[in-house]
Amino acid sequence: MECNININGILVRPEEAKISIFDRGFLFGDSIYEVTRTHKRKPVLFEEHLDRLLYSAKRISMDLAYSREELRIEVEKTINSFEFDGECYIRLIITRGEGGTDLDPTGIFHQNLIVIVKPLAEKPKEWFTQGVKFIIADTRRNPENSLDPSAKTGNYLNNVMAHIEAKKQRAFDSIMLNQEGFIAEGTTNNIWVVKNGEFYTPPLKAGILKGITRESIFRIAEKEGFKVRELFFKPEDLKTIDEMFCTSSTREIVPITQVDDLKIGKGVPGEMTLKLRQAYLKFVEERC
Amino acid sequence: MECNININGILVRPEEAKISIFDRGFLFGDSIYEVTRTHKRKPVLFEEHLDRLLYSAKRISMDLAYSREELRIEVEKTINSFEFDGECYIRLIITRGEGGTDLDPTGIFHQNLIVIVKPLAEKPKEWFTQGVKFIIADTRRNPENSLDPSAKTGNYLNNVMAHIEAKKQRAFDSIMLNQEGFIAEGTTNNIWVVKNGEFYTPPLKAGILKGITRESIFRIAEKEGFKVRELFFKPEDLKTIDEMFCTSSTREIVPITQVDDLKIGKGVPGEMTLKLRQAYLKFVEERC
Repeated sequence: MECNININGILVRPEEAKISIFDRGFLFGDSIYEVTRTHKRKPVLFEEHLDRLLYSAKRISMDLAYSREELRIEVEKTINSFEFDGECYIRLIITRGEGGTDLDPTGIFHQNLIVIVKPLAEKPKEWFTQGVKFIIADTRRNPENSLDPSAKTGNYLNNVMAHIEAKKQRAFDSIMLNQEGFIAEGTTNNIWVVKNGEFYTPPLKAGILKGITRESIFRIAEKEGFKVRELFFKPEDLKTIDEMFCTSSTREIVPITQVDDLKIGKGVPGEMTLKLRQAYLKFVEERC
Repeated sequence: MECNININGILVRPEEAKISIFDRGFLFGDSIYEVTRTHKRKPVLFEEHLDRLLYSAKRISMDLAYSREELRIEVEKTINSFEFDGECYIRLIITRGEGGTDLDPTGIFHQNLIVIVKPLAEKPKEWFTQGVKFIIADTRRNPENSLDPSAKTGNYLNNVMAHIEAKKQRAFDSIMLNQEGFIAEGTTNNIWVVKNGEFYTPPLKAGILKGITRESIFRIAEKEGFKVRELFFKPEDLKTIDEMFCTSSTREIVPITQVDDLKIGKGVPGEMTLKLRQAYLKFVEERC
């Protein structure tokens, strides 16, 4: 795979990009991370991603050893040294470092920093002409009191299991419900619906990641006069909606036109969805 | 650290024991593992550990690429080549292998196998003369429908968080409750209580790992005439018990004499607990 890797400040080729098996990220998934994309070679909404990384660190009691400035420098260095003309995918990972094999993180001195930069995957045109299919996963989202979904960590098996369910049904992704049966989020994206010209998305209390694209939509709405609200809703409520889409930092806004066997609205990408997508792309253009 | 590492059949020194950052075990905690100890240089209850590893693989939809025989050979090779006279700690890890950065495990061809063998930590005498202190963690155990606690996987942050709570209070470990408030298990051990001469432990339905030592106690009980039952119980029930202990493959049976501020029974390791420990050590001796 063509990509550029930074491990603790040193740029290495992918085949040399290795980490100790005693790293707690490997042993326990004891790490935090962020993913974004570039726009004209600059990381999109990077300050917001750094805010969330700091939040995730705090949430898992990790006393982050890197300053924002250091993180910014390492990410920019990795992008700038990557000989590729197009836009990039960026993943920044911080692990709690290398220790023994027991759970106790006392006495661990060096958190490992990893940056992965690679070409951003092309978005198939069909996503926007036909939309994508989701399923409702049997795998429920972790509850806040066991493994807080608002922290972005290396414990991702919950989402992997839900994603495997989707792949088995040839769907784009799964919608994960929380323990109470309300729609929480996709495995790597936030879920939105449109009804009577208004946008709705589950509140943070539904047990979700505070998506950066999700947050941006609230800001865009204010500027552009869209009506946006947080709302708890269940799979059966999807029968009466007009449009649906998911949001993520790398894929931005993708129309959803089917959930399990249910056709959403007219079964084609919605007008409001595509209008919001244009507004979002403009917002990113202005911000970068 | 003095230890012997096996990566995909090749023995390496700890400082060379590295894995690709594209390994899903590192990116998502997408791995399974087992831990046991040796007795006279043989892995204790190894067939039972292999059974559970196969169960964990199935539970996370991992089509295990290694046969029991291959796993047995790699573990024995790692033990036999370790120049150390005493008993060893053994950790066997299988990851879903190296792929891209997205969740989809399709197209991954090589599961990584890692074996760690190192000297078994000494058990402090005070564990058996004074017992150890547990706390009740605020962090609840993952529910079965999100991340099944009966599978032993690289997603261990739930337990890490509970263990950090214990360390902050200078306790040995935490008791984790399930979502309904019943006692589930310790972060790396099963929980037992003794009342009126009978042994009780939470049932698998409480959302726990099927401990190998736990299972052995059921077998020993049958042979030795101990009364053992599965029972749901809550922290407030600990006020009326006589003895308490935890079980794990490496630490075997350790008396618990305090939970938060509550003194358990007489506040010293219980007679039944120590009697069971002797029976367990005899059982291991006979089995190896």
